[in-house]
Amino acid sequence: MAAATAMAAAADGDDARCVRLSAERAQALLADVDTLLFDCDGVLWRGETAVPGAPEALRALRARGKRLGFITNNSSKTRAAYAEKLRRLGFGGPAGPSAGLEVFGTAYCTALYLRQRLAGAPSPKAYVLGSPALAAELEAVGVACVGVGPEPLQGEGPGDWLHAPLEPDVRAVVVGFDPHFSYMKLTRALRYLQQPGCLLVGTNMDNRLPLENGRFIAGPCAPGQEAGGRARALSPPADRVPLCPAGTGCLVRAVEMAAQRQADIIGKPSRFMFDCVSQEYGIDPERTVMVGDRLDTDILLGVTCGLKTILTLTGVSTLGDVKRNQDSDCVAKKKMVPDFYVDSIADLLPALQG
Amino acid sequence: MAAATAMAAAADGDDARCVRLSAERAQALLADVDTLLFDCDGVLWRGETAVPGAPEALRALRARGKRLGFITNNSSKTRAAYAEKLRRLGFGGPAGPSAGLEVFGTAYCTALYLRQRLAGAPSPKAYVLGSPALAAELEAVGVACVGVGPEPLQGEGPGDWLHAPLEPDVRAVVVGFDPHFSYMKLTRALRYLQQPGCLLVGTNMDNRLPLENGRFIAGPCAPGQEAGGRARALSPPADRVPLCPAGTGCLVRAVEMAAQRQADIIGKPSRFMFDCVSQEYGIDPERTVMVGDRLDTDILLGVTCGLKTILTLTGVSTLGDVKRNQDSDCVAKKKMVPDFYVDSIADLLPALQG
Repeated sequence: MAAATAMAAAADGDDARCVRLSAERAQALLADVDTLLFDCDGVLWRGETAVPGAPEALRALRARGKRLGFITNNSSKTRAAYAEKLRRLGFGGPAGPSAGLEVFGTAYCTALYLRQRLAGAPSPKAYVLGSPALAAELEAVGVACVGVGPEPLQGEGPGDWLHAPLEPDVRAVVVGFDPHFSYMKLTRALRYLQQPGCLLVGTNMDNRLPLENGRFIAGPCAPGQEAGGRARALSPPADRVPLCPAGTGCLVRAVEMAAQRQADIIGKPSRFMFDCVSQEYGIDPERTVMVGDRLDTDILLGVTCGLKTILTLTGVSTLGDVKRNQDSDCVAKKKMVPDFYVDSIADLLPALQG
Repeated sequence: MAAATAMAAAADGDDARCVRLSAERAQALLADVDTLLFDCDGVLWRGETAVPGAPEALRALRARGKRLGFITNNSSKTRAAYAEKLRRLGFGGPAGPSAGLEVFGTAYCTALYLRQRLAGAPSPKAYVLGSPALAAELEAVGVACVGVGPEPLQGEGPGDWLHAPLEPDVRAVVVGFDPHFSYMKLTRALRYLQQPGCLLVGTNMDNRLPLENGRFIAGPCAPGQEAGGRARALSPPADRVPLCPAGTGCLVRAVEMAAQRQADIIGKPSRFMFDCVSQEYGIDPERTVMVGDRLDTDILLGVTCGLKTILTLTGVSTLGDVKRNQDSDCVAKKKMVPDFYVDSIADLLPALQG
């Protein structure tokens, strides 16, 4: 709580960054803004439950003519599936052929990246450690996919593991979230990566799945949810929520270590995600806001790309985390501080109802 | 070949490090030495095939009264199993109750580490991502093991993955070589690591399995076997040998990323391995030689512990690698240069027959 108090004091001065976004400030901000980009998990919803008031806030933004975009590191849903969820939970958005055009997930953006990098390859194929959704987005841009689903251990030792046949024409290994990840898959990925020119692409580097069935996961799975109000009210106590399945970043690290090279990372905080939105929306960064619950992905992306940034306290990062970054000697951490914070994006509503 | 030529030139001066160990130099060296420590894979054998002349060299060393020790990062065999292999391939060594006392593998040394760190815990248990052999060594020092063997994906999503029951009293997660590694195991490891005081221990950080059924794997799976003579003769051309299953280090990295902490690493180049030998043998480092085929594990360990070092060219590292380390601006790399090199440890024979 000490950290939260210190933040509140700092937030009183307009010069300080990470200012609470009051209704007045929100009104002024929104007047200068055309586009709002939102992270999804921990910002709009948790699992299958919308953050209270969030759907109303988004519908009010739409009514004001603001353009919305949804930027998520989750690679296990297609654009269409995200659009369906947005509508189902009351966030609105286009239906029919335009459904999904607001959604920039790592599955879709990875497909754009591969289309770019594999342009000219006659019939490119990717070995996908990931979901059917990731494969579907890749297939949609003409990249055939192999490897989705379980691959159990076969044979008695290295000789057998290494001699399972490889597909021809595999030009990329794509690592997304894959609950079927196995040693056999790791070694198969490595064998593709030992072929000349084979790309290594990771959808994102999140070390944990951010949310689980609507249960909130505090901090980096440690106590430290200093924010009061709505965030705390929705969260079970920190000592009851060590519920964090491993995330995509763990799988990417394993493949990187095997292949002894760095993956090209698509997801936040890599600016490639923003470039995808920018290219399709024709964005003016100065008239754009990035809203997210994580300092190290959402806020860092916004800062890197010159956007205005709002941290919402319904997800991973806390005001204590902000304070630690502000006080840090590390230049990289100092950048992970938002312009504003809200307890929840429902806090935007009063400014929109005025 | 240019690098090899440059090395040969450099080796002419006695002051330069990485001098070819001629018969005369070997005689002088052996006169000053009580103990020789050998890496196994790539030094004594490849898979199930002894390096030609190596068994005779070791038996000659034994006949001269030298004490031998075998230090291996391989965690998939017990001390007893290694001793049996040494005898089977003609390297000699004690049988009966003393069998295995010369062997310091990461399975055994991990057990020593846990015995030390878990001293006082009433009935300590470890979650083992690894082989039955690793578990056997742990059980032998009183650490019960859970988790060995396959754990396939169960359930539909995070809720199910997180609710598979955990064993009580797990005080350590041990990551060794585990061909059954899976996402479920990764997430289970993470759940144990989120419990207070649970240790994270990795047997070693090798990114690849060094050898596969006796086939030689060049460099870090890249062309670059500049050494001539025996090493080349035994190796198929580099472009035919991209046969490298992923190693333990990949699995350790995945768990480290999930848990957001560094594992305690037992294997070379960590000096814990040497401390184990030293404690049991009562070693004088100045009268001890470390013989290995890898600069980044064997030779670095030797240098770190103040031993004399011999690189043998029957395994992973080449004279080109030595040259690159000598020329490197990186202090850490400059340390990875041996005092001597041999084409094969069979080159020690003439000095012993004199």
